[in-house]
Amino acid sequence: MARRRPTTPLKRDSARSRERILAAALREFSEHGLAGARVDRIAQRARINKRMLYSYFGAKNELYREVMRRRFALRAAQLDLATYTAPEESTAFWFQFGCRDRAWVRLMEWEALDATATRMIARSQRKRCYDRAIGQFAGFQRARQLPSDLDPRMLLLSNMALTTFPLAFPQLTRLITGASPGDSRFQARWTAFVRAVIRRLKPVAPPVFEGRRKGSSRYASPGARV
Amino acid sequence: MARRRPTTPLKRDSARSRERILAAALREFSEHGLAGARVDRIAQRARINKRMLYSYFGAKNELYREVMRRRFALRAAQLDLATYTAPEESTAFWFQFGCRDRAWVRLMEWEALDATATRMIARSQRKRCYDRAIGQFAGFQRARQLPSDLDPRMLLLSNMALTTFPLAFPQLTRLITGASPGDSRFQARWTAFVRAVIRRLKPVAPPVFEGRRKGSSRYASPGARV
Repeated sequence: MARRRPTTPLKRDSARSRERILAAALREFSEHGLAGARVDRIAQRARINKRMLYSYFGAKNELYREVMRRRFALRAAQLDLATYTAPEESTAFWFQFGCRDRAWVRLMEWEALDATATRMIARSQRKRCYDRAIGQFAGFQRARQLPSDLDPRMLLLSNMALTTFPLAFPQLTRLITGASPGDSRFQARWTAFVRAVIRRLKPVAPPVFEGRRKGSSRYASPGARV
Repeated sequence: MARRRPTTPLKRDSARSRERILAAALREFSEHGLAGARVDRIAQRARINKRMLYSYFGAKNELYREVMRRRFALRAAQLDLATYTAPEESTAFWFQFGCRDRAWVRLMEWEALDATATRMIARSQRKRCYDRAIGQFAGFQRARQLPSDLDPRMLLLSNMALTTFPLAFPQLTRLITGASPGDSRFQARWTAFVRAVIRRLKPVAPPVFEGRRKGSSRYASPGARV
C-alpha cells in the first residue's frame, strides 16, 4: 500500500472509490442506523479496504455526516426543479419522490430515534429548505388554493405526514391496506387519495371561517370549483 | 437463590416484580429498540437480578413480545372506551393519546426499521383493532361526516399519519414549527389544525364528486354545515 502521487487517472479512480463508498454507506446507514452500521460491511460492499475508507472519510461519524449532507442536497435540488403549481400536485410529487428514496425515509427515522444526537446534521441548510417549502404553502394560500386561515407551517407538516407516513411505517400500511408501500398499485391509490383530500380543502369564495360577508353567498357557483 | 414454594404474599411480590420488569423493559425497548436493548439495564432499572428476570420472562425476545402485546392491549382497550362521534374528535383523541404514549410511537418506529422481524407481534389482534377503526371511518362516511367516495382504509391511514407523524419525527417538527412535539402549546395548535382540516372534508348534500343530481344544488345552504 505504498502512497503514489496523484495523477489524473488516479484522481478519477479516487473519485470513483469515494462514490462507491458513499453508495455503500448510504445503504448500510439506511439499513442499520448510525449506531448499528459497521464500517467493515461498508468497506466490503464498496470493495475497498478499510484503511483506504478511513483515509477518505475519517471515522464512521464523519462518513455518516457526509452521506446525510449529500442526500439532503439531492433532495433540496429537487425542490429547485419542482414545477408544480397546485398543492395536490406538490403532495403527489413529494410522495412519488419518497417512494423512489425509501433510504432517506429510513435515515429520517433513525435520526428521530437517536437520542444521542446533539446537533442536527446540515441543520441550517435543511431549515432554509423547509422555510422555502413553507413559503410555497403560503403562496398556495394567497392563490386561494388552500384555506388562508391555516398556519402554512402546519400545512407543510401535515403534507409531510401524508407523503411520508405510509413509507415510514410499512408494517402498519400493510396491516391496514393489505398492500406494501412499495407496491405500485398502493402508490397509485395513495396518490389519488391525497389528491382528492387536498382538492377538498380548496376554499371557495368567500373563504370559510372568515365570517360571512353581507350580501355574499358562502359558496361560489359549482362551476367555479371544477 | 433457593427456590421457595409460592404463597400469597410471595405471589404478590412476584406480581410486583413482573410489573417493575415490564415497566423497565418498555422504557429500554422504547429507547434502544429490540436489537439495542440490554437485559442488564432492564434488570438494573427494575432493581431485580438478571437470573430472576430470565426466570420470569425467558430471553430478551420473549420479554419484548410481552411488552408489545401488553402495550397494544392497552391501546385496544382505549378504542373500546372512546366515545367520539365525529371524525375530527377521533383524530384529536388519538393524537392526545399518542402524546401521552410516546413510548408506543417509538416502538412502532423501531418495528418499522427492523428488517429481521419476520412475523408481526400480536398481528391478528392488531389487525382486528385496525379493522374496527376502519369500520368507524365507514360509519363516519355513512353519517355524512366524511366524503363517501374515499376508501375508509386510506382514511384510517391518513388519520394515523396526522396523529403520529409529528410525534414520530420530533426533529422535523422542531425544524418546521420551532416547537417540540412534547410542548403542550404545539399539541394544542396541532389539535386545532387537524380539527379544522377534517371539518373541511365534511361533505355537503348532495355529496361532492358523486355527480350533480337533477334539480339539486351542489351545495347545501350554509346553515346546514355549521
